[in-house]
Amino acid sequence: MKAARGYAAPSADSPLNYYSFERRDPQPHDVQMEILFCGVCHSDLHQARNEWQNTIYPCVPGHEIVGRVTAVGNSVTKFKEGDLAAVGCMVDSCRECENCKAGEEQYCDHAPVFTYNGPDKHSGTQTFGGYSDSIVVDEAFVLKVPTNLDLAAVAPLLCAGITTYSPLRHWKVKKGQKVGIVGLGGLGHMGLKFAHAFGAHTVLFTTSPNKVEDALKLGADEVIISKDEDAMNKHALSFDFILDAVSAQHDLNAYLNLLKRDGTLTLVGAPEHPLPVSSFSLLFKRRQLAGSLIGGIAETQEMLDFCGTHNITSEIELIKIQQVNEAYDRLLKSDVKYRFVIDMASLKENAAA
Amino acid sequence: MKAARGYAAPSADSPLNYYSFERRDPQPHDVQMEILFCGVCHSDLHQARNEWQNTIYPCVPGHEIVGRVTAVGNSVTKFKEGDLAAVGCMVDSCRECENCKAGEEQYCDHAPVFTYNGPDKHSGTQTFGGYSDSIVVDEAFVLKVPTNLDLAAVAPLLCAGITTYSPLRHWKVKKGQKVGIVGLGGLGHMGLKFAHAFGAHTVLFTTSPNKVEDALKLGADEVIISKDEDAMNKHALSFDFILDAVSAQHDLNAYLNLLKRDGTLTLVGAPEHPLPVSSFSLLFKRRQLAGSLIGGIAETQEMLDFCGTHNITSEIELIKIQQVNEAYDRLLKSDVKYRFVIDMASLKENAAA
Repeated sequence: MKAARGYAAPSADSPLNYYSFERRDPQPHDVQMEILFCGVCHSDLHQARNEWQNTIYPCVPGHEIVGRVTAVGNSVTKFKEGDLAAVGCMVDSCRECENCKAGEEQYCDHAPVFTYNGPDKHSGTQTFGGYSDSIVVDEAFVLKVPTNLDLAAVAPLLCAGITTYSPLRHWKVKKGQKVGIVGLGGLGHMGLKFAHAFGAHTVLFTTSPNKVEDALKLGADEVIISKDEDAMNKHALSFDFILDAVSAQHDLNAYLNLLKRDGTLTLVGAPEHPLPVSSFSLLFKRRQLAGSLIGGIAETQEMLDFCGTHNITSEIELIKIQQVNEAYDRLLKSDVKYRFVIDMASLKENAAA
Repeated sequence: MKAARGYAAPSADSPLNYYSFERRDPQPHDVQMEILFCGVCHSDLHQARNEWQNTIYPCVPGHEIVGRVTAVGNSVTKFKEGDLAAVGCMVDSCRECENCKAGEEQYCDHAPVFTYNGPDKHSGTQTFGGYSDSIVVDEAFVLKVPTNLDLAAVAPLLCAGITTYSPLRHWKVKKGQKVGIVGLGGLGHMGLKFAHAFGAHTVLFTTSPNKVEDALKLGADEVIISKDEDAMNKHALSFDFILDAVSAQHDLNAYLNLLKRDGTLTLVGAPEHPLPVSSFSLLFKRRQLAGSLIGGIAETQEMLDFCGTHNITSEIELIKIQQVNEAYDRLLKSDVKYRFVIDMASLKENAAA
């Protein structure tokens, strides 16, 4: 076993603080990494504060992980010491069900092993995430990182990136289409970049007039203030696809009515309460309402490679691990452009103290 | 102009009664038909009683029309006097929008002209439907009827038939799939027959234990009483497609959770109030909730031809036009197996009186 250090939530109502624990020695198929950067996803906050009522404490969050390989098991073929590497939301799955075999491990019939708060079959306890200095993961769930990108800004691709890339690919967004992105946050700003990169005429919906300028800069062809009914009505029946990245309760029918025949509105945010859907919104143009969850490992690699080729990264605010509790507070106020990323070198300040 | 007789609702709160009106003389592209049979759809009742707040009175309902051609305009090529013919929910559309050009007239951007209560561009008033002895319709919206089927039992194919055939085809239901049909009524029993005919393992969901025997007879491989939670849970994650033909409020999430990854639940009934949908039901297996409205003219012809080849008709209870108000009352109690069809010859009793 190898000593590891990180930040953990000791309980639902305590701030995260310094935490020492152990990582397993690399098994034959394992990759051991030094973590350089870890993104801060809203899920981290949900889990740390037990908002899904299933948190096992202490909880070390973090599933947007970029680092450098420090050791590999005997059977590892994809990585060697010194390589850049990344880990996203999953560190394992059953690998045998129909979904795993199809490369859709996120939909594993036995549930994937999530990067934190999952059942760790090696330790018998829970998995610990990326707010730490190292991690050990089976190479099947470790991604290669393009060498031409800013590593800190790569981290959010591992969750916010793949969560938006995957549905845009699945529903075949392409040039010649009109595509909407609802919400300009951690997920939405990546959806915007990808839809733009795929060549679609991309329209950003936001409730905040002060986000218009940023949206245009990030690739939007048009921005619609969603509270402006006239502006919304002008776009009725015109969209091929809309990606909805909003986690707050909101009216889906207003967006469904913007879709053409056979158009799809796909949710990637997860509003807490059920959303009322009018059957007429769906019937009259054979519209579809769908959901999508992160993406499979092969597709995550495809996304990272695409980002390397097209020079795409996340817009980030780099913080020290000591600022993570403050970052959570700001997250709740949507006060971030557009993703916090922890510089894990800062963890050494705790060790030195 | 030619004298026509039928049954009309004079106002929202009056029963339907005998009504004399006129039909136009056939124009160059028109087909004039004697109506032999007309099905009774729940929409007829909604419209007659102004439940959609848009009824123009007097209202002659009926859009499941089978008859015989009595005259054709000069330019008509598809029909001649004496041919069997049928008319469904639409008698015209703009014919120029993207949807009309794609053969999806039901999704016409300018709204199709519905068979009754639509804006009749010939008369300048409303269209009058099939509870009458004759009708005149542009040949582009008139269907050919297979000669080997019971004509009374063909009538409901024009709405209940195409409404269920179209989504089962659109979502490519086929052998090797497990397909659910929710509700055994006018629509549901046709959905059941088609899903069975397409070779799918077909499961019928009903709240009524007394419908089990009928469902099995009509082609169900299994029947699930939807109020039985254990029975429902046993089928979690196992369906490729579910067609929901229920118009009453009900819990969609219970059905969404039965779908496999990438499965679709399609509504063809139109519950009055919005239905609460959990985002988690959609996200976790990339499921889709969709709606579908009748079908295009070409697909309606394909459906009728398929029914001729596979000897499929509706299960009906034949009534006289004088029984239509009583039939409406029974419809509200779901007391029909499974579609009322009016024998239009009965209208002569009024004329004789």
